[in-house]
Amino acid sequence: MNDRLRVETALERAVSIAANAACPPRLAEAVHYAVFPGGARIRPLLSLAVAKACGGAEREVTDAAAASIELLHCASLVHDDLPCFDDAETRRGRPSVHAAFGQPLAVLVGDALIVLAFESLGNALSRHPKRLPALITAIGRSVGMSGGLVAGQAWESEDHIPLEPYHRAKTGALFVAACTAGAASAGYDPARWLEFGLRLGEAYQVADDVKDATSNASDLGKPVGKDCALDRPSAVRTLGLQGAVERLHSLVTDALQAIPPCPGAGELRADVRNQACWFAPKGLALSAA
Amino acid sequence: MNDRLRVETALERAVSIAANAACPPRLAEAVHYAVFPGGARIRPLLSLAVAKACGGAEREVTDAAAASIELLHCASLVHDDLPCFDDAETRRGRPSVHAAFGQPLAVLVGDALIVLAFESLGNALSRHPKRLPALITAIGRSVGMSGGLVAGQAWESEDHIPLEPYHRAKTGALFVAACTAGAASAGYDPARWLEFGLRLGEAYQVADDVKDATSNASDLGKPVGKDCALDRPSAVRTLGLQGAVERLHSLVTDALQAIPPCPGAGELRADVRNQACWFAPKGLALSAA
Repeated sequence: MNDRLRVETALERAVSIAANAACPPRLAEAVHYAVFPGGARIRPLLSLAVAKACGGAEREVTDAAAASIELLHCASLVHDDLPCFDDAETRRGRPSVHAAFGQPLAVLVGDALIVLAFESLGNALSRHPKRLPALITAIGRSVGMSGGLVAGQAWESEDHIPLEPYHRAKTGALFVAACTAGAASAGYDPARWLEFGLRLGEAYQVADDVKDATSNASDLGKPVGKDCALDRPSAVRTLGLQGAVERLHSLVTDALQAIPPCPGAGELRADVRNQACWFAPKGLALSAA
Repeated sequence: MNDRLRVETALERAVSIAANAACPPRLAEAVHYAVFPGGARIRPLLSLAVAKACGGAEREVTDAAAASIELLHCASLVHDDLPCFDDAETRRGRPSVHAAFGQPLAVLVGDALIVLAFESLGNALSRHPKRLPALITAIGRSVGMSGGLVAGQAWESEDHIPLEPYHRAKTGALFVAACTAGAASAGYDPARWLEFGLRLGEAYQVADDVKDATSNASDLGKPVGKDCALDRPSAVRTLGLQGAVERLHSLVTDALQAIPPCPGAGELRADVRNQACWFAPKGLALSAA
């Protein structure tokens, strides 16, 4: 089974524990709509890649952690698109969840996905309970109010938005969780993978800022120019377009150098280099070391 | 330390793991506002009472589970009050979270509290990981999309609202979690406490319907007459006022009879009888069993 299929299977398994007869039908439909078909699934693929680099054998644990992280990512997209935040009518080239199902269900879909992320993790790890507290801590921190996704979004409600904590919370934290949870699921020290996750997360954020400033909506499948319109911090606004692209290259290089010694370090490095096209905006070649 | 103080201490501990320097200040303030000062704290007190009835010694585990349940209850209140649901400007006699902090932070406070409920549980149980999967399952199910709080709220987005699953999900599920988690934290079979929790939850819901129909807003600290205004199912609308009060009495009696054999069954029965004033609307004496 290739990694993408593993991720989809793990997500289907997680969603199926909740989408049964006791679930209101429109909610079940909206949750499925929010998760499938997904985007690039970068974060769970990263978990799998790190676990593999660590020589990980406990596939069940890795898959559950990877799915949990993607469910939380999906939850954040649904809530971020709400009218009180980005007010985005489209996502992945089709109506956003609130545009398709209404605001009440969109709020509930986000809530349901957060609950499901932890519930499915607890469920999958009932035979490996010793690994559960560390995974819950790593994943919880990455989405919580202290430096996680929720914190990132909440900085936008402050008078002054500090750029580094903002980006680190809004994007970096979930990349860190993807890497540390992948390592922890394979029995490796998660702390050693923090730097790698942080740099990749920063790279992804800068790439996203560049895309927001340079793409058109039909290429991207979601509205563009939002950073400027909503007066939000952005690497392009701070560094200029060329500066932002240079920063992106240097962050990917830093990430590659931050990969700690492990059985599959070489393969992981090659993977990140090959897949750096995830990060690179169309027409901007990415030639990082 | 009395039980109420135990609950407040456990909640302070849970919130403090997240409300640190990396948390945006207004978010930290809004989360604190959503949790303190609380209402009657019925659900966590119920967890403590059940654990005590079971002769429970593992206070740390019980307290963490009780706090987790109350955090989820607070999260649901914040989201339920949003303009797209109940549009309630007041709660516990003061502005609701969105009225005080705006909609974006209210959405994020709910999200943060859901994450915190699981994160603080994982944190507190790092020395008792074997009990963690069962507690996460019990608590996750009670708030999730399949028969939990989220399902209860989502039934309101369906064309037809089935009364029993609706009430069971919206109120009963968290009472069930309070009881089963209390029992599980004391090493008792949680399944035997399901019926007790279910009946108490139903009683509480019927009492709430009666209060909604008969109280005034200043007594209740929140808007009244919402069920009728929002065309929602209610025991008063279905059974009439007298019928609803009779149903309330019979449910408390059923709950008392559902208490399974345990060292402190007698004391728990007396406790529920004494504290049934929680359930009884002002001016309506409750003389169950």
